[in-house]
Amino acid sequence: MSDRKINTAIVGASGYSGEELVRLLLGHPHVNLSMLTSRQYAGQPLTSVFPRFAGYTGARDLSFSKPSIDLLAVEAEAVFLALPHGVAAEFAVPLAERGVTVIDLSADFRLNNADIYKEFYSSVHPAPEWLTKAVYGLPEIRRDAIADATLIASPGCYPTSILLPAIPLLEAGLIDPEQIIANSLSGVSGAGRKADVPLLYVECNESLRPYGVPKHRHLSEIEQELSLANGSPVTVQFTPHLVPVNRGILTTIYLAPAPGQAEDFGQWTDAIAGCMAKRYANEPFVRLTGSDRLPDTKNVTGTNTIEIGWAADPRTQRLRVFSAEDNLVKGASGQALQSFNIRFGFDETAGLLI
Amino acid sequence: MSDRKINTAIVGASGYSGEELVRLLLGHPHVNLSMLTSRQYAGQPLTSVFPRFAGYTGARDLSFSKPSIDLLAVEAEAVFLALPHGVAAEFAVPLAERGVTVIDLSADFRLNNADIYKEFYSSVHPAPEWLTKAVYGLPEIRRDAIADATLIASPGCYPTSILLPAIPLLEAGLIDPEQIIANSLSGVSGAGRKADVPLLYVECNESLRPYGVPKHRHLSEIEQELSLANGSPVTVQFTPHLVPVNRGILTTIYLAPAPGQAEDFGQWTDAIAGCMAKRYANEPFVRLTGSDRLPDTKNVTGTNTIEIGWAADPRTQRLRVFSAEDNLVKGASGQALQSFNIRFGFDETAGLLI
Amino acid sequence: MSDRKINTAIVGASGYSGEELVRLLLGHPHVNLSMLTSRQYAGQPLTSVFPRFAGYTGARDLSFSKPSIDLLAVEAEAVFLALPHGVAAEFAVPLAERGVTVIDLSADFRLNNADIYKEFYSSVHPAPEWLTKAVYGLPEIRRDAIADATLIASPGCYPTSILLPAIPLLEAGLIDPEQIIANSLSGVSGAGRKADVPLLYVECNESLRPYGVPKHRHLSEIEQELSLANGSPVTVQFTPHLVPVNRGILTTIYLAPAPGQAEDFGQWTDAIAGCMAKRYANEPFVRLTGSDRLPDTKNVTGTNTIEIGWAADPRTQRLRVFSAEDNLVKGASGQALQSFNIRFGFDETAGLLI
Amino acid sequence: MSDRKINTAIVGASGYSGEELVRLLLGHPHVNLSMLTSRQYAGQPLTSVFPRFAGYTGARDLSFSKPSIDLLAVEAEAVFLALPHGVAAEFAVPLAERGVTVIDLSADFRLNNADIYKEFYSSVHPAPEWLTKAVYGLPEIRRDAIADATLIASPGCYPTSILLPAIPLLEAGLIDPEQIIANSLSGVSGAGRKADVPLLYVECNESLRPYGVPKHRHLSEIEQELSLANGSPVTVQFTPHLVPVNRGILTTIYLAPAPGQAEDFGQWTDAIAGCMAKRYANEPFVRLTGSDRLPDTKNVTGTNTIEIGWAADPRTQRLRVFSAEDNLVKGASGQALQSFNIRFGFDETAGLLI
Repeated sequence: MSDRKINTAIVGASGYSGEELVRLLLGHPHVNLSMLTSRQYAGQPLTSVFPRFAGYTGARDLSFSKPSIDLLAVEAEAVFLALPHGVAAEFAVPLAERGVTVIDLSADFRLNNADIYKEFYSSVHPAPEWLTKAVYGLPEIRRDAIADATLIASPGCYPTSILLPAIPLLEAGLIDPEQIIANSLSGVSGAGRKADVPLLYVECNESLRPYGVPKHRHLSEIEQELSLANGSPVTVQFTPHLVPVNRGILTTIYLAPAPGQAEDFGQWTDAIAGCMAKRYANEPFVRLTGSDRLPDTKNVTGTNTIEIGWAADPRTQRLRVFSAEDNLVKGASGQALQSFNIRFGFDETAGLLI
Repeated sequence: MSDRKINTAIVGASGYSGEELVRLLLGHPHVNLSMLTSRQYAGQPLTSVFPRFAGYTGARDLSFSKPSIDLLAVEAEAVFLALPHGVAAEFAVPLAERGVTVIDLSADFRLNNADIYKEFYSSVHPAPEWLTKAVYGLPEIRRDAIADATLIASPGCYPTSILLPAIPLLEAGLIDPEQIIANSLSGVSGAGRKADVPLLYVECNESLRPYGVPKHRHLSEIEQELSLANGSPVTVQFTPHLVPVNRGILTTIYLAPAPGQAEDFGQWTDAIAGCMAKRYANEPFVRLTGSDRLPDTKNVTGTNTIEIGWAADPRTQRLRVFSAEDNLVKGASGQALQSFNIRFGFDETAGLLI
Repeated sequence: MSDRKINTAIVGASGYSGEELVRLLLGHPHVNLSMLTSRQYAGQPLTSVFPRFAGYTGARDLSFSKPSIDLLAVEAEAVFLALPHGVAAEFAVPLAERGVTVIDLSADFRLNNADIYKEFYSSVHPAPEWLTKAVYGLPEIRRDAIADATLIASPGCYPTSILLPAIPLLEAGLIDPEQIIANSLSGVSGAGRKADVPLLYVECNESLRPYGVPKHRHLSEIEQELSLANGSPVTVQFTPHLVPVNRGILTTIYLAPAPGQAEDFGQWTDAIAGCMAKRYANEPFVRLTGSDRLPDTKNVTGTNTIEIGWAADPRTQRLRVFSAEDNLVKGASGQALQSFNIRFGFDETAGLLI
Repeated sequence: MSDRKINTAIVGASGYSGEELVRLLLGHPHVNLSMLTSRQYAGQPLTSVFPRFAGYTGARDLSFSKPSIDLLAVEAEAVFLALPHGVAAEFAVPLAERGVTVIDLSADFRLNNADIYKEFYSSVHPAPEWLTKAVYGLPEIRRDAIADATLIASPGCYPTSILLPAIPLLEAGLIDPEQIIANSLSGVSGAGRKADVPLLYVECNESLRPYGVPKHRHLSEIEQELSLANGSPVTVQFTPHLVPVNRGILTTIYLAPAPGQAEDFGQWTDAIAGCMAKRYANEPFVRLTGSDRLPDTKNVTGTNTIEIGWAADPRTQRLRVFSAEDNLVKGASGQALQSFNIRFGFDETAGLLI
């Protein structure tokens, strides 16, 4: 199977995640990028909207078209949706029903529960029957389910930066599920290519600001997945901040030992390191920096790698875990492509090793 | 006269120039800031839109209101217009006709000629009879006319950075009027607080780009003023570039000796230095760096100072003149306030020395 | 007393805090800036090192000199020390012993305990007898002691951003002293004007990184002051991060109700708001944004104001408190000047209202 | 030949150009990166100095070593020198004499004339006999000579951005060689990874500044190559500016018609467009944007592409040509690799198409 090329489309290819998907798919050995849609740029050549791509052989004949479900179902075996939540479902359901593999970068099918969707997204879910059929596409955690999925809900950028470090520790019963605090910093591309005054250069440059208070939408999927890992409900304190970089998320997670783990702090610390190593030592896109070096977004921008490091603090009997990722790659388009590779039986790193 | 306070209003106080005017007027010893208008923020307190200003005593009771010519004429002796071109004239003319002193930061009354206005601004000038009555408010060049003006057309940011260095040299007959090339770099605030995709943080950060080709609107006033200084028409090659800083314009002007000046390059160079010193040595807002040090925008941001330096190049027999200013202060609001000080007989530096 | 001018010197005036002190002192109505020292720039005019200051009348005749304790004691009634820790003590002690008022921006006299100094600063304290005589110069907390002090140890930038929000809550017994987590983001000027590869533009731009692990030096004074407020020892989890802005600290503090306060979350929330208002409503340099708006460093850069806001989260039964300050002003030079004003009986805001 | 792998070394692999070379060579299908030298990091694994590279299979076993000419001559068939000028020659000459192909990114062998080297680099050239044997490695201009060279002197970043646009126009006799003005903006990585105060984040951020006056070192090679294209000596006015981006050079060149070309401006303009198209339409790394769109560095960062656009101005009878490149790729390491491909008979784009 590994020789063939999959006809692939991107719906909503002109936002930042869409643009990054174009970059990655153009370089993928098993993808034939057959269709790009964008209402705004329909009719325009790809390279006139994104001149960077003129360097890719495959880019020269591509133009944006208006999205059509019928055409997509005919032209593409796999469709990536890089659309706003609410809009994505309009494409995901009919395409998945026709047997097209859908990899949805929006939040529409990340939650299992329509009530929580309504609570966090303020609208009734349009296709609740698909919520349980869709697979939450975090490859390091759900590899097997992704391999069989028709509709893959690719995780949000913040959740990826929190779930990958925290899930193994929760599953191993090492940390107290009632004391999880995640503090995240994000570059401005995370807010999308939207003509919005607070996202102007002058408003973001030389500005540091929290936002998403009281509860950011991504909290819903963070708590869902941590609860699954924990075996019972987990409530998380999560605070995102906007900082002036184009790309990158740096998350600092504050953790405490699980009730039974608090007696010997040194032993607990060793168990943390062992748990991380066991889970991630062989993962191609997780780089454990341990306590030797702290993660830095500049080590991962442009790549599908997440760096994870930690520092145990005997003074406070707490652990700080740090993660750094590119919000557009491991936090969005790269991770979606990783799921694609798993789903179609390609090497998981195909098109993703820089 | 220097003890009294002038009731002053700002129309269009929520853009970047307007905001900067608020800052300067709140600190001015002879200004009573009595009215701020903004269609968008009408009804909101100043400090809820711009929390920075809460530190000023005078700011606490100010709110934005909808602009009304009648109210402005009653409440204000002086009105600053920080509006888009075309809109400014709707306020400038009726206010000036009622005897209010109008300091217009837009381009509406900078040109003497309605045909050139139409050529560069693509619309018929709404009040051509005022074009010759208005005074082009470049204080170092037009101090006397400003003192008597009812309608002061405050210069554009790019023109200020070019005219101040070039006018003395042209007037002195030192440079060839047919070989003036001005290359300017501007921070993003120069484009205004507009929700526009090309002005987003992600689009401007890590980007360097020329724009305004073939001819930027500011070229019209640059050529008008240089022609006046020269005594005959001057055509200028001017290229603006957008670079990722919030504030600052750095202009590099390439000049050649006037026909009769080319024989002795050393003598010409001395004459250039002498001409600059004679004109600007005592100007409070012009800092001549000569050839000892080159201008840098970080030396002037937040101030009404323009730095001017130069380097004569015997190899090419040309002169490079460099200027650095804050586009929102000396290039806009600070210069407008300098004209206000002249007009009302205050010390020209009142409220402008940091 | 309020009419006179204090002869004032800055030792170490060429770093970022020193430069900011120069700016503030040049604009202060009761300061005669009589001496600036810098080993590196001795002999050079102030305005050749910092061209910005040429706009101030008082700056033109100032030059850097080599520091001499004898000269300082003769020329200055008040001396600001903007020196590295360890070096500051060499000036602070002999000057204070001769009766000069010393305002030390370094960490040398912030701690009460020489052992903790040694633990955090890795050297024996040179003058432990002064540790208890010096006053920790946080004006909102120690106004009276500052008024009588000879040696004022001005707080660090991070501590200011944490102590001002947390001390009132601890004193009121509202928060659990065992669950204080402070996550801080700092601009690069906080690291000083040091020729260090990790501080280069290219290394900091597009980079987000934690540092100061396991324990940043500022932790010592944070815990000292919180312990005093609490009446018994407090251990804090503090993590600084370096982010690409010139100026600004944004701190997010995670807090839990004190043991007796956890029953009625709504009532606790009200008590938090009441405590903050009672303590800070009339403070000229504290701006409470409450829960209406979150702090943003761009609202405070260049000013001595700290913004403090908060968000109670009933889901987690925790409180997040946010603060934003300019690390060089409220976090360093502005706060030092505020102490100077208190010490010499001037209006506390003299020279500090922008 | 195209199947084999060339054993390749990088001397000075820890600067910005060296790091970029590592990135490119690790991804090259015909390179076996066998040795990396760095005095500073000798003994350290590549991935501990540059964690980004851990994602490349070939990177895991690489460590920095001290440079040894004997070892290099044994281990490498091709050696890239990413060293300061003056130091590079110490390696280039003995290696080239032993038959190793040397691609030197420094300025040591770019000039044909030892006197000009001395004038611009202030030291006597250590191996003048190699100045004429070395080939100036601008692939689009010297493809054939590069194919046979033992010592390739890869061009500077600024020269590349000026020479590629200007050489065809000079060779075609279309432009006046006496009126060439080049105004360049460069990102900070162009200054190298040097612990220097003017390159600190805080000194560069929010700063725009010219430098390299009266004459930048790169001027020597710019004039040499333009003179060769012109057939007689050309003197150029060149001004570099430092602007706050990590990567990118944007050059604006002001040109006038050659004496015989000034009569019909429209015809001249057509000839310019025709000349550019003829020369570059089939070049894989030159993207002509013509007058439809202006170059922007963000379209080329990370790639080996140079964008070239132009705007003829009938008002001034001048032409503005704009180029945008990544100073570390087309301006340094990518171009060096392009020469390597030519020299060893590989597809010229091998390892360079993103």
